[in-house]
Amino acid sequence: MTEDTGDMWVTVTPEASRRLLLAAVDSFAERGYHGTSTRHITAGAGMSAGALYVHYPTKADLLFQIALLVHDSVLRTLHEAVAAGTGPPQRVRALMYAFSAWHARHHRAARVIQNELGALGPEHAAQIADLRRRVREMILAEVGAGAASGDFDVADLPGAARALSSLAIDVCRWYRPEGPRTPDEIGAFYAHTAMRILGAG
Amino acid sequence: MTEDTGDMWVTVTPEASRRLLLAAVDSFAERGYHGTSTRHITAGAGMSAGALYVHYPTKADLLFQIALLVHDSVLRTLHEAVAAGTGPPQRVRALMYAFSAWHARHHRAARVIQNELGALGPEHAAQIADLRRRVREMILAEVGAGAASGDFDVADLPGAARALSSLAIDVCRWYRPEGPRTPDEIGAFYAHTAMRILGAG
Repeated sequence: MTEDTGDMWVTVTPEASRRLLLAAVDSFAERGYHGTSTRHITAGAGMSAGALYVHYPTKADLLFQIALLVHDSVLRTLHEAVAAGTGPPQRVRALMYAFSAWHARHHRAARVIQNELGALGPEHAAQIADLRRRVREMILAEVGAGAASGDFDVADLPGAARALSSLAIDVCRWYRPEGPRTPDEIGAFYAHTAMRILGAG
Repeated sequence: MTEDTGDMWVTVTPEASRRLLLAAVDSFAERGYHGTSTRHITAGAGMSAGALYVHYPTKADLLFQIALLVHDSVLRTLHEAVAAGTGPPQRVRALMYAFSAWHARHHRAARVIQNELGALGPEHAAQIADLRRRVREMILAEVGAGAASGDFDVADLPGAARALSSLAIDVCRWYRPEGPRTPDEIGAFYAHTAMRILGAG
């Protein structure tokens, strides 16, 4: 694994379940969800072919678990980021820093999710759509608070909120661990860029 | 097909080759490159299973042809856009409008390319990487010209150029034809957003 696999996966127990999830991220990233067999996953986890079903009934359940962990981690990260901010510019700066840096640190899992969300079944897709809606609403609320307070100069609130979220999410597409910028440098630059987009004094 | 399939594909002849390319975009979008069999493609084109090889020796050749058409279309679109601009702000506005609107109009083909570029063989990948480098260099040069002329206030030129390109490319991920914004509305908003990111007076 070339990414920070830290606290996002640490809650997954037993360890065999966690190994299977990480092997699934690897294989989905390499071959796509549809190109991945359950054997690719168990082989990647160093387990026997039958071991998957003990932990996850289907390949679709694995994708759903990854999506849940990813979106839960994003939501927690954003809530923690804004909590320390004392006013809208500080809060949105912290949010944008955290959101962008998260997508650099977790670029492989994030890329899998962006590419493969369409493979979720309808019930799973609805649950994930709900988490994604909460992220969008949170960003919109933070941007809206700054517009209401006069800290931001924004004519098109949903458009500006979308631009922030799009910039941060797309980091997972172009980020390379061997590239010139660290996750924190990307976070700092996009926090600054967000203030410009929002016309913050 | 739900997208504008206009001039990007019109140069592909004979018509059977074009039908196969469009069917491949459909199937890659739905199942991923690795999950697509050549039968999915020929069935989607309404042709017999053996018909593919007459036009494309391998599935990889199809992906490469789509990638060539997509990147060629982007480069032509950007060059046409800046040609009419009389100064850096006008040129970058036009570039950003065209780049963003292109990714809305061609969102399905663009999404396939973003998701599946890793499946290209090394020689094909090198050719496409060269076209992508030309797009990046063009944007960097246009932003740099505005910084040099004093029209833009940019401390981090590569970072700002990356932000513009990232915003435009990510349109293909989130754009929905049934959504509230047209490709032209997205283009206009992102042209305005680009001026803010670049600190244009």
